[in-house]
Amino acid sequence: MPSASVLLLVLDLIGTFAFALNGALTAIRTAHVDIVGVITLGAITAVGGGIIRDVLLGALPPATFRDWRYLAVATAGGLLVFLFFRALSRIIRVIDVLDAAGLSLFAVTGAGRALQLGGGPAQAILLGAITAVGGGTLRDVLVGRVPGVLSSGLYAIPALVGAAIAVLGSSGGDGRLGLVAAVIAAAVCFGIRLVGLHFDLQAPRPRGLRPDVDRD
Amino acid sequence: MPSASVLLLVLDLIGTFAFALNGALTAIRTAHVDIVGVITLGAITAVGGGIIRDVLLGALPPATFRDWRYLAVATAGGLLVFLFFRALSRIIRVIDVLDAAGLSLFAVTGAGRALQLGGGPAQAILLGAITAVGGGTLRDVLVGRVPGVLSSGLYAIPALVGAAIAVLGSSGGDGRLGLVAAVIAAAVCFGIRLVGLHFDLQAPRPRGLRPDVDRD
Amino acid sequence: MPSASVLLLVLDLIGTFAFALNGALTAIRTAHVDIVGVITLGAITAVGGGIIRDVLLGALPPATFRDWRYLAVATAGGLLVFLFFRALSRIIRVIDVLDAAGLSLFAVTGAGRALQLGGGPAQAILLGAITAVGGGTLRDVLVGRVPGVLSSGLYAIPALVGAAIAVLGSSGGDGRLGLVAAVIAAAVCFGIRLVGLHFDLQAPRPRGLRPDVDRD
Repeated sequence: MPSASVLLLVLDLIGTFAFALNGALTAIRTAHVDIVGVITLGAITAVGGGIIRDVLLGALPPATFRDWRYLAVATAGGLLVFLFFRALSRIIRVIDVLDAAGLSLFAVTGAGRALQLGGGPAQAILLGAITAVGGGTLRDVLVGRVPGVLSSGLYAIPALVGAAIAVLGSSGGDGRLGLVAAVIAAAVCFGIRLVGLHFDLQAPRPRGLRPDVDRD
Repeated sequence: MPSASVLLLVLDLIGTFAFALNGALTAIRTAHVDIVGVITLGAITAVGGGIIRDVLLGALPPATFRDWRYLAVATAGGLLVFLFFRALSRIIRVIDVLDAAGLSLFAVTGAGRALQLGGGPAQAILLGAITAVGGGTLRDVLVGRVPGVLSSGLYAIPALVGAAIAVLGSSGGDGRLGLVAAVIAAAVCFGIRLVGLHFDLQAPRPRGLRPDVDRD
Repeated sequence: MPSASVLLLVLDLIGTFAFALNGALTAIRTAHVDIVGVITLGAITAVGGGIIRDVLLGALPPATFRDWRYLAVATAGGLLVFLFFRALSRIIRVIDVLDAAGLSLFAVTGAGRALQLGGGPAQAILLGAITAVGGGTLRDVLVGRVPGVLSSGLYAIPALVGAAIAVLGSSGGDGRLGLVAAVIAAAVCFGIRLVGLHFDLQAPRPRGLRPDVDRD
């Protein structure tokens, strides 16, 4: 059974690669970017959430920056998309599935890292969700979109649920994620996200809003 | 007479609540957000300035993140707005007054925290203003608006004045805010902001700008 | 021969001034800003890249914030632009040349600071480029533009080349920049950037993109 650190690292690198592919594909589809933009936006989507988490924890330099493997994987993902964009974009829902995978893995690994660094359970759940949604939020801000997490579909909610399961399943004593709980947590987050996408489920919106009257 | 730390905390929590209400109301009025967006934008407006300040001071994790009361108050404010949006938005200028209250309180508490952590007077004044305007700036960037602080009305200027009064009134020796000076500083900032709103006062703009010629 | 620290400081302050002028001019030309906005956007363009670098290195408070000279030079640049905007904007390509100067100096000094703080060569090159492009990226996000570095012309590439030359020319033992290598590195970056501007060179774009089909 792998140690908690190795588990975190492997899941983290898979999530990094998924988000890098997603970020680079999204960049090409929404903005007028060159190779620098494709790779940069892929990398920021991939490592941005972890950087925000580590800044908030004061664990600097961030893990995603100190360990060359994160940036290597993130750059490779962006470069692959730049080279094989047409082939990749034929796989029609690939962006959504990659995004759900990154979301699920980062919610779990982000919560695990917060626990390792001494954060309490509530902090760890919140930081798991921030790790999961942070990179995509930075990407959206950079390409001039209102971040999807604020408005569309179930996105932060599965991340919070996944992080909560991971934290509840961790061994209280030393704050390590349990392997079984981590896998269940990621699977539940992934499942909620994909079900939400398939049935176009939405989080509740403010009631009684009259756009013509209430908006500035 | 309360200690400086208790004073800072109480003023900070009141400012946090005011900014959370303001941020959530602004979110509903300017973007197409769901409950996650309302609460997130309320919370970011409320704790964003303090987080930027603490990152710049290297005081990590940020106070607004380490102490659960900030996030609890911020989340409660956003949730209240989500539930009672129609009732709250009838109070027509409530957004502006709440915003002025948060601005004033954070200018003072932000400067106080900078002094406590060993910042010099100039740094403390600047960090007070950054604490005051930072959260609203993040909110505006996330909803795709040019931050109001850069363009409209007297906003950063009262924050700088309030922070300066608080710093000048602090006991030089141990860098603590004086209670009287803190109250006067917040009141002056609040007054300048409301007078500016009422008479639509503007900070000077560049002269001789010909938009049809000079703009890109 | 000046010490590495003095060399870094002097080049850094010149770059800060160039970027402050550039940022303030850009602010006036692209957004509806008042004096607060002009000075703030000038200062953020000037010190933003260095702040991002120092946050990523965990060297907090950031050098550009701890040392009053950075903020004094940055504020002075913004104020000069506010006062003499019409005269300055007659020098037609002045924005581009100032920007290229800031880019070159910050790529070198950013890499040097990363080495001083114990970063490896790859990290130092990346952090040099981040220092060079970070301030302008923050400025663009604040005025609502997609950051130029993602889409237009040769911008990140000369910064990466300049940072790489500076790192390769540093004395391996103590991680200090060599004076000659630093000057060559900045000159090469500056040259590539200006040649790129003059001939409107572009980095490669994704091939086979059909905007009407592929975009969201």
